Amino acid sequence: MFESAELGHALSKGEYKRVEPGLRADLLDAQYALSQDGRFPVIVLISGVRGAGKGETVNLLNAWMDPRHIFTSAFDKPTDEERERPEMWRYWRALPPKGKIGMLFGSWYTAPIIDRVFKRTKPLELARSIDEINRFEKMLADDGALILKFWFHLSKKRQKKRLKAIAADPDTRWKITKRDWDFFKLYDRFYAVSEEALRETSTAWAPWIVVEGSDPEYRAVTVGRALLEAMRKRVAAPPERRAKKSDAPPLVRPVDKLHILDTLDLSQSLPREKYRKALARQQRALALLTRHPKFAKRTVVAVFEGMDAAGKGGAIRRITAALDARLYRVIPIAAPSDEARAQPYLWRFWRDLPRAGRFGVYDRSWYGRVLVERVEGFAEEADWMRAYAEINDFEEQLARHGAVVIKYWLQISKAEQHRRFKQREKTRHKQFKITPEDWRNREKWNAYQVAAADMIERTSTAQAPWVLVESNDKYWARIKVLETLVEALAARLKG
Amino acid sequence: MFESAELGHALSKGEYKRVEPGLRADLLDAQYALSQDGRFPVIVLISGVRGAGKGETVNLLNAWMDPRHIFTSAFDKPTDEERERPEMWRYWRALPPKGKIGMLFGSWYTAPIIDRVFKRTKPLELARSIDEINRFEKMLADDGALILKFWFHLSKKRQKKRLKAIAADPDTRWKITKRDWDFFKLYDRFYAVSEEALRETSTAWAPWIVVEGSDPEYRAVTVGRALLEAMRKRVAAPPERRAKKSDAPPLVRPVDKLHILDTLDLSQSLPREKYRKALARQQRALALLTRHPKFAKRTVVAVFEGMDAAGKGGAIRRITAALDARLYRVIPIAAPSDEARAQPYLWRFWRDLPRAGRFGVYDRSWYGRVLVERVEGFAEEADWMRAYAEINDFEEQLARHGAVVIKYWLQISKAEQHRRFKQREKTRHKQFKITPEDWRNREKWNAYQVAAADMIERTSTAQAPWVLVESNDKYWARIKVLETLVEALAARLKG
Repeated sequence: MFESAELGHALSKGEYKRVEPGLRADLLDAQYALSQDGRFPVIVLISGVRGAGKGETVNLLNAWMDPRHIFTSAFDKPTDEERERPEMWRYWRALPPKGKIGMLFGSWYTAPIIDRVFKRTKPLELARSIDEINRFEKMLADDGALILKFWFHLSKKRQKKRLKAIAADPDTRWKITKRDWDFFKLYDRFYAVSEEALRETSTAWAPWIVVEGSDPEYRAVTVGRALLEAMRKRVAAPPERRAKKSDAPPLVRPVDKLHILDTLDLSQSLPREKYRKALARQQRALALLTRHPKFAKRTVVAVFEGMDAAGKGGAIRRITAALDARLYRVIPIAAPSDEARAQPYLWRFWRDLPRAGRFGVYDRSWYGRVLVERVEGFAEEADWMRAYAEINDFEEQLARHGAVVIKYWLQISKAEQHRRFKQREKTRHKQFKITPEDWRNREKWNAYQVAAADMIERTSTAQAPWVLVESNDKYWARIKVLETLVEALAARLKG
Repeated sequence: MFESAELGHALSKGEYKRVEPGLRADLLDAQYALSQDGRFPVIVLISGVRGAGKGETVNLLNAWMDPRHIFTSAFDKPTDEERERPEMWRYWRALPPKGKIGMLFGSWYTAPIIDRVFKRTKPLELARSIDEINRFEKMLADDGALILKFWFHLSKKRQKKRLKAIAADPDTRWKITKRDWDFFKLYDRFYAVSEEALRETSTAWAPWIVVEGSDPEYRAVTVGRALLEAMRKRVAAPPERRAKKSDAPPLVRPVDKLHILDTLDLSQSLPREKYRKALARQQRALALLTRHPKFAKRTVVAVFEGMDAAGKGGAIRRITAALDARLYRVIPIAAPSDEARAQPYLWRFWRDLPRAGRFGVYDRSWYGRVLVERVEGFAEEADWMRAYAEINDFEEQLARHGAVVIKYWLQISKAEQHRRFKQREKTRHKQFKITPEDWRNREKWNAYQVAAADMIERTSTAQAPWVLVESNDKYWARIKVLETLVEALAARLKG
């Protein structure tokens, strides 16, 4: 992939002077058009070898364009808040909103490549990282992002020359440290690992653009033009997303129309006395687990989904009652804010992820994408269809970072829902829980049940299982929730 | 202040059982009314001595009410991201949006009191903290927040008994550490310092409510009722803010109508060649300063304000051109997002404060409150009048934390603005910079000039000075900006 970036590409100063003003004006225009369009972000990754002009190019692009609409992020050592979340958290934080350019100096490629160069990881780990990156970038692209990945390359000979030149100039000497020479010694390894990473992540939706970095004029104009053309093309002809059907084969309905939620025995119940004892026992067990020394390193992500009045709030309160209020946050999910709407739909969930040693208890969740957004038509088929895989990726990252991810579907019968709605209308402090919208949603009962069954089938994984909770009897439901939570947490703390 | 909380207040279990269900239902109702009203947040501080039931009460309130609409925050050791910002940053992050309850476990009182108890600070430092807290709470209250500050108290005898009881119970033993006994040894000192802090922060807008903490039923019902009544009262009769004029005396106009911006000599200019040399020299000096070892601990906050077309963008680009793109972020300030609108107006500026070792360059800023919001009537007089002091407090905190705060007002003549507008309309890649709104704003030239003069008079401080920049000549303006920035940064790094 690097051969053509070792040819000694260059642009004369005269030629540069001739093209620069026009390119600059065009870039500003394109940036303005992007901002006016407002439908997609531009994500520019700047990667490559030391001394190849990455910093200079970013500085130049900021100078050419309007820096107020460029979000430049550099990634140094993670902060402790970053270390308490999965690795991708810091990159999600740096994503530009729609209509803006995000310039990422260093990126999700840095750690996988460097770790492999220094043999801190095995080949298979690099392969897994590459796979995850491809999926992540696909998600961004599917969401509309224009992704430009620039790799600044120098041949071994040229890099050596360049590092020496920087070290010799009193103005730039400070830039070169022993670390740079240590890296240089590993040039061949770095070459091989990067080549592999680039080859396997040069996808249709986010191809790499390899730029020879030795000549400042050449690299500047190359990057500038590539960015310009990509922005122009995208603004002129945005992908036809809105009316797009999914390419995926349709979800298969069981021919006997039996689905998993039908198989639950909703008649299961628990007498009051047994409930009381079990509640005290489970709450105590849960409280004890939070004092386990390993708990401080864990995050618990507990998701509650279910039809209206299925008892989500009540089950959540039986969990939180066992916990010190310092240790949890209940996160109710409503319509996204305007900042969230300018980002991929998982963005707000990434943003608000709890720290280590905390419970994040979600009253509704990212599954809204494949439940309410699907049923009500707020999301296109193509968008909610891809959400299953995106959510699995998200939860896998959580689990791998040590989080305990557990998801509850609280199932009630349609008749039981009706009974509870009526009861809520009568009870003073429950009246606010029942709105005309609840009655409207009820009319779509079957559609929601089908969506829930699909969701469970496609997103119940070993690392983030769905627990189906028979909830016609509240006592039964609450104890089942607590028991399974205690079990899952205990397994992770003691395992 | 603590005498009446040493009387041995208690509520019988029977009485508790009688009142609890009604109180609980009422609190839920009130919480719902708060959420429906959506005009103000409720900020509940939970402070006091160890063993007095703070945690239990917070847990209980979360159990009584709907925990989905309560934001409980506890403040442990600051994270490194928090340490890179002024102390109040972490509290700003924890403020609840309008319509919600924020429960703060530990608060802005903790550090000032503890530091004084352990004599890490002097009496005057405590006094200054108290003053700052009062101003901060006043700002919150002026912004509409309902603030309830609970102090959980125990007499010395009762605290000792309580700690012993907790330590004796195998279920709670883990809660008591050596630190608790160390604290207990300082009971008298803690009593005296807290008493002073409470006395001096028990204001009309945020009075303390001291609660005797020995009897669980008593303290629960006391806190529950206080919260209930405060919420009810506020929802029923919100303060009449919207049509409110400021109580402050009107701004005094100089009787000769001469104001500071009139005194600038706008004819000052710099020939092109001199400009080029000075630009290179200053940019180099600025770049060198960022490599000063102390820079990594500093934040630079550079604010640009001025009439449209005054050259803010151009001046900013002459700064950023000198900097590594990793070191700065240009932050353009536009209308607030819906998340920001649910918070005090300084919230979003707190949220996006740059880390240490970074430049935050603001193209327009928090001064919008006393410029565009004042002139266009987006903010009430009472609100923008108080903003001067609030902004000074904000910048003082930045400066005290080590930030270099520098503010530029770029002044052009009305004729020069007209010339630039016309020119922009002609230049291809500048057309997007000129909109009908710019022409409309121009009609209010004089009102903006008066607002700017008031702003400069009231917010130019030693720690965060305004630099008035004669900007009819762009070369002159840019060099003045760079020179003063270099000077200010050098003084702080070398001082």
